Amino acid sequence: MDQWLINGDIADSIPAGDRGLAYGDGLFETIAVRANKARFLRQHLARLELGCKRLSLPYPGDAILVNEVHQLAAGRSHAAVKIIMTRGVGRRGYAADSPEASQRLVGVTATEAHPADYYLSGVSVVRCNTRVSRNPLLAGMKTLNRLEQVLARAEWQSPKVAEGLMFDEHENLISGVMSNVFLAVDNTLLTPGLSYSGIAGTMRQRVIDVWLKQGLRVTECAITPELFSEASEIFLTNALIGLWPVKKVDAHEYSYGDFSRRTMGLLASAGVSECNVLARAGS
Amino acid sequence: MDQWLINGDIADSIPAGDRGLAYGDGLFETIAVRANKARFLRQHLARLELGCKRLSLPYPGDAILVNEVHQLAAGRSHAAVKIIMTRGVGRRGYAADSPEASQRLVGVTATEAHPADYYLSGVSVVRCNTRVSRNPLLAGMKTLNRLEQVLARAEWQSPKVAEGLMFDEHENLISGVMSNVFLAVDNTLLTPGLSYSGIAGTMRQRVIDVWLKQGLRVTECAITPELFSEASEIFLTNALIGLWPVKKVDAHEYSYGDFSRRTMGLLASAGVSECNVLARAGS
Repeated sequence: MDQWLINGDIADSIPAGDRGLAYGDGLFETIAVRANKARFLRQHLARLELGCKRLSLPYPGDAILVNEVHQLAAGRSHAAVKIIMTRGVGRRGYAADSPEASQRLVGVTATEAHPADYYLSGVSVVRCNTRVSRNPLLAGMKTLNRLEQVLARAEWQSPKVAEGLMFDEHENLISGVMSNVFLAVDNTLLTPGLSYSGIAGTMRQRVIDVWLKQGLRVTECAITPELFSEASEIFLTNALIGLWPVKKVDAHEYSYGDFSRRTMGLLASAGVSECNVLARAGS
Repeated sequence: MDQWLINGDIADSIPAGDRGLAYGDGLFETIAVRANKARFLRQHLARLELGCKRLSLPYPGDAILVNEVHQLAAGRSHAAVKIIMTRGVGRRGYAADSPEASQRLVGVTATEAHPADYYLSGVSVVRCNTRVSRNPLLAGMKTLNRLEQVLARAEWQSPKVAEGLMFDEHENLISGVMSNVFLAVDNTLLTPGLSYSGIAGTMRQRVIDVWLKQGLRVTECAITPELFSEASEIFLTNALIGLWPVKKVDAHEYSYGDFSRRTMGLLASAGVSECNVLARAGS
C-alpha cells in the first residue's frame, strides 16, 4: 500500500502482538477506486459489518470508514483501497480480551488496468491442486486466514495464466484464488453456494442483483465435477477486475458466449467501467 | 509479549503490509522457558524449519534463532517465547515476491504456573461446536491461520473449564483448542493422526518418543466418535502445560488412570518440570 490510516492516523506499522498477525483474527475488504470514487463502498461495508458480527468484532460504523476511504481515494484515478479490521493486541493465547482493543487499518495503493484483452477475448486459467477447506462458521467471510489462497497462487508462475480455480476435498468447484466463479450450464447461470467455503464477493453479489433485476435467475448450488464438466461458459468476478470471461481451463477451451456478454453489459451499466467492452473495442 | 526482537532488533511493531497480517502467511512456535532455559528448543526449531519448507518460506537457520531465543530467555524463571516467521511485505495480491522479504519475530512474555490441581486431579474440558477444517497441505503446521481456534475458545467463559475439544466435520476428534489429545482405549494409547488437520505438537511428539523408548506403542489414527466413546482415559499436552489429565468432558467423568500417570512420570523424567507430580504433592 502507498499509504495507511491506522485507527485514523497516518501510520505504517502495527503492534507485533496484534491478533490479526498472531491468528489471522480479523477481516478485510478490497475496494476498487475509479476516478476518485470507491466503487460499491456501501456493499463492502455491509459485508464487513456482517463479518464483524459473525466474529464478534466491533464494527466502527459506516461514517468513520466512509470518511477514511474517501480521504484515501481522493485524487486517485485507478487504485485499490484495503480495509483490515483485527481484534487488536491481546493477552497470550486464543481467548480474546474486551472488544475495545480492535484495530482498524485503511490503506490505498495505485493499480494498473488489466489488459483489455482479458475483457475482449477472455482469460486462461488453471485448476489448482490446493484445496479449499470447509467450515460453515467461516464460509462467506473475507477473513485474514488466506493461506490456502497463497499456496494455490504459488502453483503457477506463467503471466499467461490469469487465475486459478479452486476445489474442495469433494472436488466441488468453490472459487478462483482471488475471484468468484459463474458457469452457464444447460442455459442456466450457476455459481458455487457459500454454505461451507468461499467468499461472498461484492461483484458476485452485483452479478446476482443485476440478473434478478432482469427477471433472470442465478442458481447458487454445489458445483460438482459433473456440473462443472457440463459448463458451456465460465466467467470470473471480483471487485477489482469486474468480470473476466474464461477462454481456457488448462487445455479445455470455452466460448465467450451470451451469458458472459450479457453479464458484462449489465455490469458496465451498473458502473463497472472496465466491463464497458464496446468502449474498449472502439478505443 | 514483554519484549520483541524483530529481525534481530529490539522493536515492537511490523509493517502494516506484512503478509503475516494480510493472509496469515507464516508460522509460529510457542516455547516454554523454565529457569532461563528454552525447553525442547531444537524440536521447536525442527518443526519450524519443516513448516518453512512446506510453505516455501526461507528458514533463517538454527544459529540465529537459538541466539535470539537465548537472549530473551535469559533471566526468566517462567516464561513463554514466541517465534513468528512471515513472508514479509509483499505486493498487493496473493502472489509472493522473492523469499528474501521474510520477517522474523521473537518475543518473550512472563507466564504463571498453572494450578497444581490441574496436574494432581485433572482438568474439566468442554466439547466445542466450532469445527476444525481439513486440509492436508496445512495439516500438522502451526500456521498463522488460527481463526477456528479463536472461535472455539470463545465458546466458553468459565475459568473452571481449562480447555475445549475440537472435532472435524466428520465428528472425528482432532485436538484441544491449544493442545494435543491422547486417549486410552482398550489398553492402547491413541492420538489423532495429522493427515488432514491438527498440529504436530512438540509435547505430543515427546510423549510418543518417551513411550517408544519404553518399548510401548502410541497409535496415531482417526479418532471416530465410536473410538472416542470407548476412551477410559484422556489427557492433553502442549509445550507450555506439559500434560493435563482430563477428569471431565462436559458432564462425562474420566479416571486419572495408569496411562496418564505413567506418561506424566515419563515427561517429568524428560525434563518437563510441571509434570513432577510427586514433587508437587509433597510441596
